[in-house]
Amino acid sequence: MAAGERTIHRKAQGYRWEGVAELPYKEDGRALFKSITRQVLFSDPELRGELRYFEVAPDGFSTLERHEHMHAVLILRGRGHCLVGNEVRPIETRDLVTVPPLTWHQFRATRGEPLGFLCMVNAERDKPQLPTAEDLARLQADERIAAFLRNAPQN
Amino acid sequence: MAAGERTIHRKAQGYRWEGVAELPYKEDGRALFKSITRQVLFSDPELRGELRYFEVAPDGFSTLERHEHMHAVLILRGRGHCLVGNEVRPIETRDLVTVPPLTWHQFRATRGEPLGFLCMVNAERDKPQLPTAEDLARLQADERIAAFLRNAPQN
Repeated sequence: MAAGERTIHRKAQGYRWEGVAELPYKEDGRALFKSITRQVLFSDPELRGELRYFEVAPDGFSTLERHEHMHAVLILRGRGHCLVGNEVRPIETRDLVTVPPLTWHQFRATRGEPLGFLCMVNAERDKPQLPTAEDLARLQADERIAAFLRNAPQN
Repeated sequence: MAAGERTIHRKAQGYRWEGVAELPYKEDGRALFKSITRQVLFSDPELRGELRYFEVAPDGFSTLERHEHMHAVLILRGRGHCLVGNEVRPIETRDLVTVPPLTWHQFRATRGEPLGFLCMVNAERDKPQLPTAEDLARLQADERIAAFLRNAPQN
């Protein structure tokens, strides 16, 4: 991409941006995600990272997944809960969440309001892995995680 | 860094973050920057990008510079103006600004309020170049840019 083709300034209107497509995720039969949209804010051949914005509607959640690449997350809007590894945490606007390699993670809009977050990833990265029935059973064996996955976190 | 050494969740308190140092820039004799602080939010051997938060106090400004690497900016707080190449733009919360390679740029808190922005860069990157007297004269030959550099942008 030539420098001249880059748009210098893209104005925000709320949590949408000029020239940025909003990509709805299809609803998934296994209910691994729900009511989440994605906008790619920065992706460029010169950038080794990408910056995306995800927004989860109330009671929605991101995909429960893991992968070799890391996620570097800043909550931009609202509140909710996240699962990272064995940890369930309440999250609020501007909190930072680090998802290390090969760590199960999910973000949930548990507070009756949208949960929006920025996520920086490597431009070159592996595909996410979805949990097997055994993985899910292992996660649900932890009552705190089970409650989170029922959209009823304990705090 | 082992995965176990990473902190999963760092809470925000306003525009400061747990475990993140706030790095003041020294005031500069050439007045190339003023009243700006930096916090490195994400930097990790596994990440090819870094995410930093810069905050400029009212009437302050970031360094006027250029470099081979790109800047991918999201305004997180307040309003102000930016210069990118020959363009002076008013910027508001959540606007996106792309700084292409080798393009002069500066961010100014021109609205009597702090201007805070996230900036994604490549972890591996070149050092910034500062303007020579000739570079500055060339920029100031454009009245719109000259007004911006006097902290009195025209819109």
